[in-house]
Amino acid sequence: MGHLLGPHHDGSELYVPVGTPSLGDVVPVRFRVPAAGVERGVWVRTVRDGEPRMVEARLDRVDDDERWYVADVPVHNPVTSYRALLDEPGGYRWLNGRGVHARDIPDAADFRLTVHPGAPAWLSGTVVYQIFPDRFARSGAVRDLPEWAEPAGWDDEPVGTGPGTPRQLYGGDLAGIEARLDHLERLGVGTVYLTPVFPARSNHRYDASTFDHVDPLLGGDAALASLSRALHARGMHLVGDLTTNHTGDGHEWFRRARADATSEEAQYYYWTGSDAGPGPGYASWLGHASLPKLRYGAPSLARRMIDGPRSVVGRWMREPYLLDGWRIDVANMTGRYAAEDRTHEVARTIRRTMTDLNPDAVLISEHFHDAGTDLPGDGWHANMNYSAFTRPLWTWLVEPATTLGLLGLPITIPRRGGVGVVETMRDFDSAVPWRVTARQWNLLGSHDTPRVRTLTGDRTLVEVAAGILFTYPGTPVVFAGDEVGLTGSNGEHARAPMPWDRPDRWDGATFETYRSLVALRRGSRALREGGLRWAVVVDDALAYLRETADERVLVVAARAPWAGADLPRHLLGPGAEPENLYGGGDLDVRPDALHVPGDGPGVQVWRLA
Amino acid sequence: MGHLLGPHHDGSELYVPVGTPSLGDVVPVRFRVPAAGVERGVWVRTVRDGEPRMVEARLDRVDDDERWYVADVPVHNPVTSYRALLDEPGGYRWLNGRGVHARDIPDAADFRLTVHPGAPAWLSGTVVYQIFPDRFARSGAVRDLPEWAEPAGWDDEPVGTGPGTPRQLYGGDLAGIEARLDHLERLGVGTVYLTPVFPARSNHRYDASTFDHVDPLLGGDAALASLSRALHARGMHLVGDLTTNHTGDGHEWFRRARADATSEEAQYYYWTGSDAGPGPGYASWLGHASLPKLRYGAPSLARRMIDGPRSVVGRWMREPYLLDGWRIDVANMTGRYAAEDRTHEVARTIRRTMTDLNPDAVLISEHFHDAGTDLPGDGWHANMNYSAFTRPLWTWLVEPATTLGLLGLPITIPRRGGVGVVETMRDFDSAVPWRVTARQWNLLGSHDTPRVRTLTGDRTLVEVAAGILFTYPGTPVVFAGDEVGLTGSNGEHARAPMPWDRPDRWDGATFETYRSLVALRRGSRALREGGLRWAVVVDDALAYLRETADERVLVVAARAPWAGADLPRHLLGPGAEPENLYGGGDLDVRPDALHVPGDGPGVQVWRLA
Repeated sequence: MGHLLGPHHDGSELYVPVGTPSLGDVVPVRFRVPAAGVERGVWVRTVRDGEPRMVEARLDRVDDDERWYVADVPVHNPVTSYRALLDEPGGYRWLNGRGVHARDIPDAADFRLTVHPGAPAWLSGTVVYQIFPDRFARSGAVRDLPEWAEPAGWDDEPVGTGPGTPRQLYGGDLAGIEARLDHLERLGVGTVYLTPVFPARSNHRYDASTFDHVDPLLGGDAALASLSRALHARGMHLVGDLTTNHTGDGHEWFRRARADATSEEAQYYYWTGSDAGPGPGYASWLGHASLPKLRYGAPSLARRMIDGPRSVVGRWMREPYLLDGWRIDVANMTGRYAAEDRTHEVARTIRRTMTDLNPDAVLISEHFHDAGTDLPGDGWHANMNYSAFTRPLWTWLVEPATTLGLLGLPITIPRRGGVGVVETMRDFDSAVPWRVTARQWNLLGSHDTPRVRTLTGDRTLVEVAAGILFTYPGTPVVFAGDEVGLTGSNGEHARAPMPWDRPDRWDGATFETYRSLVALRRGSRALREGGLRWAVVVDDALAYLRETADERVLVVAARAPWAGADLPRHLLGPGAEPENLYGGGDLDVRPDALHVPGDGPGVQVWRLA
Repeated sequence: MGHLLGPHHDGSELYVPVGTPSLGDVVPVRFRVPAAGVERGVWVRTVRDGEPRMVEARLDRVDDDERWYVADVPVHNPVTSYRALLDEPGGYRWLNGRGVHARDIPDAADFRLTVHPGAPAWLSGTVVYQIFPDRFARSGAVRDLPEWAEPAGWDDEPVGTGPGTPRQLYGGDLAGIEARLDHLERLGVGTVYLTPVFPARSNHRYDASTFDHVDPLLGGDAALASLSRALHARGMHLVGDLTTNHTGDGHEWFRRARADATSEEAQYYYWTGSDAGPGPGYASWLGHASLPKLRYGAPSLARRMIDGPRSVVGRWMREPYLLDGWRIDVANMTGRYAAEDRTHEVARTIRRTMTDLNPDAVLISEHFHDAGTDLPGDGWHANMNYSAFTRPLWTWLVEPATTLGLLGLPITIPRRGGVGVVETMRDFDSAVPWRVTARQWNLLGSHDTPRVRTLTGDRTLVEVAAGILFTYPGTPVVFAGDEVGLTGSNGEHARAPMPWDRPDRWDGATFETYRSLVALRRGSRALREGGLRWAVVVDDALAYLRETADERVLVVAARAPWAGADLPRHLLGPGAEPENLYGGGDLDVRPDALHVPGDGPGVQVWRLA
């Protein structure tokens, strides 16, 4: 069985200098071609002011195995797209983010240099831990319940669908989280991402009643300040969750808007009237009357919500809360309505507000689908990576007979072979700069999806999934509870409380798997910072190389036993032996090949150089 | 050998109602699926305010051969993208503009509904004839030559490369064109597209010295008015050519700008100074000092150049010139410079200026490469279709041993098989709304490229190329001289004068081919307005169906003998016989199939229903 290692480029340090170029800079960009290649030369095509221009690449380095070319690419526009032309006898091939093509191709999957700084450096070293505050831990504080709430026992099963779903209040709070930080430290995660903490009329709090204070049910402002201090004291980071697309219909702005059509706040919403047919008379998220949509055309909304240190975005980043970033809910819809499209403007404003307060702040969008056109890097640093990671991976690892639905589609999750899965990952990845890909928030699931354990139905396949999560380019994000094997058949049902006192629900083996994989990532710069070369892609197995200037790591993930594959012998550094970093298996070093065994299911990681 | 006819949709009348929807409309959209399909149902996914939404399609019509589904798609945004989900046992497939996919795919190739009106209706019935004024015909008027000009004899060969190339003046003029309109009428073309007519310092006149009057060398303003009257009297249209990206360095604006840094005109250009390294000290087209780039950030440039009836764009559309449209030179770069990107704004302004003066005016961009993101339909109606038509077709029909270069690439044109050629056409087509595809300016060559006769090296292959040109969706554009077999090895060399008095250079057989193919198109609404279904795509042959509600036409183009193919019998209307419309061949009607013979090279066209 052959391998895929052909001409290659990505935006990692082996190919593009580290750092953010400025307009007018000239960036040396490198391409590698196997020694068996037949190219007469390599050219780089960039698009400058809308017009393609060709730059000849120089042969930079040659050995028995590879030729490296380098070309000087002028950074003339904020986003400079480029691809390589391999001049070969009888024709030419293009190399872009989707691979090699023996025909002409549109620009959408070209590589990209951008003058927009990437996400802060600390994100590269961290693993994010997502907490749904009502379900993580109780401090024991006794509080009056609001009218909408239906109290649940900590061990109750969440209601997956129905009117009771948003009302079921378990009573987790911020002090409860603070008391459990040892768990996070044992696991090795470095960043807490909290879903919303503002008062609302639901347990998920995406229907905020105000953005001015923290829900007293969670302990109020002081509890958030205290949690933030505790996290920072451990060297951890804290990211909040903001609904910029809508408020709750109980929000103070919306109530004022409804009460007084001449109020400033009345301009914050889209009043559709009865002409728009059945509906609440205002635009709302997916037609839900409880979630009226915000209108950024209103003169003062940006100032109150997103622009400047006194805006909502700014206020919670300042003392004493010191959020290190925001995850923006429904970022894909924010600022978009009918003929209006202010999404990029909103994203850039949020980014500027944040960066002015803290150059190391991170801004993540929620976009379940094709976020390509929203991620040039000037607004959102990266996206919750359902499209290029979660969904394709699910289709590879899902139980064949699953009855779980696929996010928003009227079907159950299909099981697909590895070839289509990787094509999908490359398709979506190639629409954004590498700098974004390298920080995307990869996840196996969230509070909006089934749990990976339910999806695979199998502890070992969870290990395969997590093995990829922690060895793949991007930021691994763990939904609290996945690491102890919680189950859940949809997003709401997946919001199960952490079973602190239920050893029967606490899968210690899975916790050890996660802990080891987090440590694996922390111990390898290639896994955190390296490029990505696909080495083997077959129905039941995926293998890839993660490479920095000083390290080469091979990851092999199999969902079932497979045939195994030979990789080029030269991938093993001179005089080196493969060092198994995870999985405990042996790589068979033959005179002319590195033979990858066809074991499965499972995940194996070797350091090759 | 099988055929490709699977689930299908495009934007033509069989699938989408004719006309331009408005925001808020609901448009019934149809999809066809072969009876052999296994779908449990069809859903349509639209993207609304950035968020995918699923609409269930209803089974609309069923017969022994096909199932038709219809779904109501709300037009919520100015451009509504959509695709179909085929819910099939064991998974699902997506149908988008590139075909059917058994995995998730980004949105870039989705179908599109747009609220922007398409090109005017007259464009659908016309064939465009491109004239390079210096090379079409002389009136015999004797004029003083400017200093830059080097007079050429009408029978001289154009200089392909060198300092003399732009100076070689043959002396064609507008009255010369007017005197030769019988030739156009014999050919059957209905629209003249004239490359620039403003005074300049070159024979191509893309380096205008003014936009205020027509070059006296061409006969001046009166000659243009007269040509326009003559064309309109014959029911023909006239399209001009405007360089909105740059002027000549001899332009009155540029001279004023250079002479006085405080002048209004000084703001019309980008002064880069000596900091920008070697160069003229101002931004210019591809670094040519003679072509300084216009800066649309200047407050008054838009008013003078593109905005309103008194602008350059407007003035020449008014009496007595009455241009019916503009082709915009270097549209891809217009308004783009470093961090500025005003291209869409410029395009929309030009469109508004034109449409206000004449709702039936047409606006065409020049964009040699990926114009996808510039063609939502609000600015340019369509593009000179090098990417989705000319270049892929060239690679299919080029002489194997050609030494011709491929536009802007450091290589000769490679010869490719039909499969990759059609994939490329679909890739580029799928990036724009059908309404744009259906009017793209398709061409086999222009004043910027080699001649198709030189490229193929063969009269029969020119017939194959022209056969596709006149039967494919879009607007056929003929570069004057192609129809009589002129040759040329690059754009400059291709600017050969029409050999009116040289029967040895006048290929009458090719003229008859062109004339017949123009007539073929005029005689079939399906060829002008129909959808496009690929039926056979193999290395040496391409076959496609053009279909309206009342007609089905099959086009088979072969570059060489091939194996032939069976198509479904039901493509032949009930009781109908195949009617050969071009080529004279027989389609073999068998009990269970329509057999397409494997003759070649050549082109055959049959009406099936």
